[in-house]
Amino acid sequence: MTTLSTEILRPASYVYGTWHANADGQTLLDPVYGRPVAVISSEGVDFAQALQYGREVGGPAIRRMTMHARARALRALATYLMERKESYYTLNLLTGATRRDGWVDIEGGIGTLFSYASMARRELPDERFVPEGKVEQLGKGGTFVARHILVPREGVSVQINAYNFPVWGMLEKLAPAFLGGMPSLVKPAPQTAYLTERVVRDIIASGLLPEGSLQLVTGDPGSLLDHVQEQDIVGFTGSAATAQKLRVHPNIVGRNVPFNTEADSLNASVLGLTVRPEDPEFALFVKEVAREMTGKAGQKCTAIRRPLVPRHMVEAVVAALRQELSKVTLGDPARDDVRMGALVSMDQRERVRETLQALQKEARIVIGGQERELLGGDREKGAFLDPTLLLCDSPLTATGPHELEAFGPVATLMPYDTLEEAALLARMGRGSLVASIVTHDRTEATELVMGMASAHGRLLILNRVNAKESTGHGSPLPQLKHGGPGRAGSGEEMAGIAGIKHHMNKVAVQADPTMLATITREYVPGGEVREDGVHPFRKSFDEIQVGDSLLTHRRTVTEADIVNFANVSGDHFYAHVDEIGAREGIFGRRVAHGYFLLSAAAGQFVSAAPGPVLANYGLENLRFVEPVGIGDTIRTRLTCKRRIRKDLRPGETRATGVVEWHAQITNQNDALVATYDILTLVERARDAFDPQPEPLTPLGEASSAEA
Amino acid sequence: MTTLSTEILRPASYVYGTWHANADGQTLLDPVYGRPVAVISSEGVDFAQALQYGREVGGPAIRRMTMHARARALRALATYLMERKESYYTLNLLTGATRRDGWVDIEGGIGTLFSYASMARRELPDERFVPEGKVEQLGKGGTFVARHILVPREGVSVQINAYNFPVWGMLEKLAPAFLGGMPSLVKPAPQTAYLTERVVRDIIASGLLPEGSLQLVTGDPGSLLDHVQEQDIVGFTGSAATAQKLRVHPNIVGRNVPFNTEADSLNASVLGLTVRPEDPEFALFVKEVAREMTGKAGQKCTAIRRPLVPRHMVEAVVAALRQELSKVTLGDPARDDVRMGALVSMDQRERVRETLQALQKEARIVIGGQERELLGGDREKGAFLDPTLLLCDSPLTATGPHELEAFGPVATLMPYDTLEEAALLARMGRGSLVASIVTHDRTEATELVMGMASAHGRLLILNRVNAKESTGHGSPLPQLKHGGPGRAGSGEEMAGIAGIKHHMNKVAVQADPTMLATITREYVPGGEVREDGVHPFRKSFDEIQVGDSLLTHRRTVTEADIVNFANVSGDHFYAHVDEIGAREGIFGRRVAHGYFLLSAAAGQFVSAAPGPVLANYGLENLRFVEPVGIGDTIRTRLTCKRRIRKDLRPGETRATGVVEWHAQITNQNDALVATYDILTLVERARDAFDPQPEPLTPLGEASSAEA
Repeated sequence: MTTLSTEILRPASYVYGTWHANADGQTLLDPVYGRPVAVISSEGVDFAQALQYGREVGGPAIRRMTMHARARALRALATYLMERKESYYTLNLLTGATRRDGWVDIEGGIGTLFSYASMARRELPDERFVPEGKVEQLGKGGTFVARHILVPREGVSVQINAYNFPVWGMLEKLAPAFLGGMPSLVKPAPQTAYLTERVVRDIIASGLLPEGSLQLVTGDPGSLLDHVQEQDIVGFTGSAATAQKLRVHPNIVGRNVPFNTEADSLNASVLGLTVRPEDPEFALFVKEVAREMTGKAGQKCTAIRRPLVPRHMVEAVVAALRQELSKVTLGDPARDDVRMGALVSMDQRERVRETLQALQKEARIVIGGQERELLGGDREKGAFLDPTLLLCDSPLTATGPHELEAFGPVATLMPYDTLEEAALLARMGRGSLVASIVTHDRTEATELVMGMASAHGRLLILNRVNAKESTGHGSPLPQLKHGGPGRAGSGEEMAGIAGIKHHMNKVAVQADPTMLATITREYVPGGEVREDGVHPFRKSFDEIQVGDSLLTHRRTVTEADIVNFANVSGDHFYAHVDEIGAREGIFGRRVAHGYFLLSAAAGQFVSAAPGPVLANYGLENLRFVEPVGIGDTIRTRLTCKRRIRKDLRPGETRATGVVEWHAQITNQNDALVATYDILTLVERARDAFDPQPEPLTPLGEASSAEA
Repeated sequence: MTTLSTEILRPASYVYGTWHANADGQTLLDPVYGRPVAVISSEGVDFAQALQYGREVGGPAIRRMTMHARARALRALATYLMERKESYYTLNLLTGATRRDGWVDIEGGIGTLFSYASMARRELPDERFVPEGKVEQLGKGGTFVARHILVPREGVSVQINAYNFPVWGMLEKLAPAFLGGMPSLVKPAPQTAYLTERVVRDIIASGLLPEGSLQLVTGDPGSLLDHVQEQDIVGFTGSAATAQKLRVHPNIVGRNVPFNTEADSLNASVLGLTVRPEDPEFALFVKEVAREMTGKAGQKCTAIRRPLVPRHMVEAVVAALRQELSKVTLGDPARDDVRMGALVSMDQRERVRETLQALQKEARIVIGGQERELLGGDREKGAFLDPTLLLCDSPLTATGPHELEAFGPVATLMPYDTLEEAALLARMGRGSLVASIVTHDRTEATELVMGMASAHGRLLILNRVNAKESTGHGSPLPQLKHGGPGRAGSGEEMAGIAGIKHHMNKVAVQADPTMLATITREYVPGGEVREDGVHPFRKSFDEIQVGDSLLTHRRTVTEADIVNFANVSGDHFYAHVDEIGAREGIFGRRVAHGYFLLSAAAGQFVSAAPGPVLANYGLENLRFVEPVGIGDTIRTRLTCKRRIRKDLRPGETRATGVVEWHAQITNQNDALVATYDILTLVERARDAFDPQPEPLTPLGEASSAEA
């Protein structure tokens, strides 16, 4: 058992390259025993200077790194922080949270760094920009084309975070901002800012991110928003009321600074109409509701606030929840036998109690309401609250339970009669981060999903099949959208690569094909190609250039080819081998197998002897455009479309890169018969081998600034 | 020559299914002769009722249609409007615009409908939702997966439009809103609302869109924004000042209603540093600047306001522009010999003159400033203004030319010394819709693009290669983003399919694979398959279901197979045929050709006799996972992944659909050796033939409501 620290913390701000601490400030009390834990203040911080520093030092340093270099830095950082996690768990207890609560925050946060790092390396190019979508043909002659690219915004990502996830809340925004090329300025909520500060201290000490990538304001945000500019963005997590206040800040409005909100919402969980008490889904529903009510003492913006159950199941659900919630032990989160700790502060408990009071106008308490035994912690000075379930009998006409959020271990159960009504009740939250649907019935689930989708950012369908692997109703995941319409803030965080792109500016580039290829570093059909007499397959990855091209010799396709190919493949489809059937078919004659064309094209362009091209490991975008019949003559043009650098993976001994080739097979009339892209693995030149293809100058700078 | 109408127009509002006109209201004068042309007023319109009607009548009707049904309706509408374009051209003259100006507005607007209709049918599924991105594996066991889907927002798209493009401005928002499943409520700027109204009259009369899809408020927007709700969205085009006022409307802020702004900006055009006066790019630059200054009398939010030229080229550019602008004839736009008409109103001219005055603090007039001969029109009562070019010698220290927009035929020329400085000057506009770069030099263009990309929504590189096909600096295109960061409003319109998705809510759906497949109508690997004993290739498009699957017989790959395949393809790559080279290669032994595996798999699953599957026309996502050597035994599982309905195209005689199959080749150890998706064309059952696979109920309803 860990004991609470008695030393008073003085979390500082980290701005323009220095730590800035104050002796005096707001005193925070721990919510378990009511003892002073920290004094915080941002007095003396020059917010304009901090933003300017981010723009002029942090931003350029990050933007000099490629996406993959940024990803490698984040992965190294995640490893570094994971090794130091125990010190975060110690501070976590001071916030009233149990170790299990802390796991979501601390290891969930560090895990988000890992996820984002690998996502970026898997799905983004090792460049400083991201091409998006396809090349658009803007003219019939092929001289005018366009494509979208995304580049980093040249400002600071200002992140105003909530108190409930001091670690995850920072890292889930820092990761996509950093990958997107923007420095972060983090303003954590005061109540738990000392934990955020501890992590920031480690990040800065690690020297793994370039200096200026991360700044921290501990305490009051002061005039911060007066100084944001057009290229900055603001991400806010917290209450809907605060969001509205900040969103209309004249400087944010005047400069059209993007303001992304993730506000808590009244999330529903629907027990399916077909579920019987003996079904596994019944027990899953009860466990999930209880877990969401009590995890982090209910202080989660994704927590279930509105369990919706078929009217005939109300009694059974209340009974099962009473049973489940009775097992929840309350007290000092440092004790191993405690399942639920305290709310973050006495103030917070007061707010929850007020909301509970207001909710009772339209709902009545059916579980909770009296105080259970405390296992440690101070009854008077601690912010403890029993899990409390209300029941609202007429939810279609009630307003409070759909609007008032008690941000604690509180939920309001609501009966419904039809699936349509269940979906309507869910939508009455006016926009939620998440809802869950607990059922094994696919028709029911589909109807509920379609009825609820417009008002939610995430929908979890939970049942016997996925229960073991499910990450649960309340867990946002880096791959998925976190955010929701309306009440939930109309924002979007994470959402995989989309979360990175939120930190970038999308611009449509219109040009001629060769120019567009030069800018996007990707061959554009119709653009100039390069033919230097060397077979492109004889060049190493480092020698190959986008546009390197080969036009092969010709080959006349004969009846013997079709017959031989049918025999070796076993594919005797009538269009190839049955003169009668083929004549009546869509081509009106026997035609060559499509895969024969692919194979014959490879026979034309492959360079047979061992060389730098090691293997063809994939193919994309294949379209057979025109049929090829007996007597037609084909030839193939192969052009380097894209070079994709990759790191040496554990176990790999040869440094390689991926080269994507655009192949076009034409016939004797120069008509296109097939077009596709081939993915090959190509060796790097020995002397060009470098596990870090981009020199990590900014990282070096960061280290020396730290030294 | 068309003469101006003398009848006074009384454009009405179209709300909750009825036309609402007022006898009295604001009188608009034509800006050419100063005669009264229209009286407009929205007095008596019930805005709350209009929004409610859109939500309850229009929205559900559109959402009942599939994406392709919506696209067909738009295409039919575009054809209908194109037949009536001459009546729009007549009214266009009343706005002060020439026929050529009107072409951009009228035919450009109708063309946008055509483009969007074909984009939607080409790139979106014929469903009521859009799946996005890939299936995410959320657990190692494969029972927990997720995918994003987009569904229509269940509100109204409120569109507040600018005066300069009364037709295009409406249609470019209506098209993506309608395709995204949202009804539109259009509020055109009063000055030119009569032209918008004329088009709306035709749209309503056509009966081609379901009733409630389109409402029109002509006149003052009154309390409109007091009634928007969480599922509504607001799209605003106009001045930055008005945008800021509307954006902080308490109801928009309180309900987190997405507010998309497209504000005019101070767009730059850069003449490359390498361009010499004798290069074609010099003439292109001069022509483009002159055209952007005078087209629509400079009243375009994308117009060039800041031509940037190398310092040593200032004199040459001014001389050439003087020559070019001297050819611009000014007067009554109804006259064939007039190239530039009037500004939209005397007020507008007054504002431009005031801004011109303010600009002269830091710049001086080098072209214009005195009045040229008028060809028709009234000197006193008409809103005519000469094209005016200012020169700002020290643009790096000036502020006015980067901030003050004279929304008329006015631009400020600025010299630059280095490419870095040119990019900086462009960025000093603090966010622009578009910039152009005129050069044939690829290095220079790339540097400028990368230096300017963060502050722009679109970048056009113009040169001798694409000049003929280029649509020009000022033309937004449906396929490309229209919008820009900062000053330009931080919004995004059009941008192809992304523009449609702005009207939808993205939701992450987490479930087990079979459940996810049911909801998204797309097979998810790991989910249940259906094996009913009938070969899937023997089923018509209408009989095939997602999940229909076939596990083939086995085949042992022999040395003879490899040899035969090398011979028929001509592909004698050492990894297949050279025992020595192969041993030293990455596989350490001879392996089968990848395309042999594809071909042998086809030999396993193809059903040889004529049947409903007509052709394999494409392939996607092929990955060779494990090599296959001599003696390995392969088998293939083929599963219906997705069914894509398609209409009968002109000239097609057989009704067909596209079926995408997921193929997995495994070896004797059940290890995956290759995975890919095959696209096939499959006949529809004769009795299921229906050129409109979705019954167009809402369209029928609309027609009867009109009748």
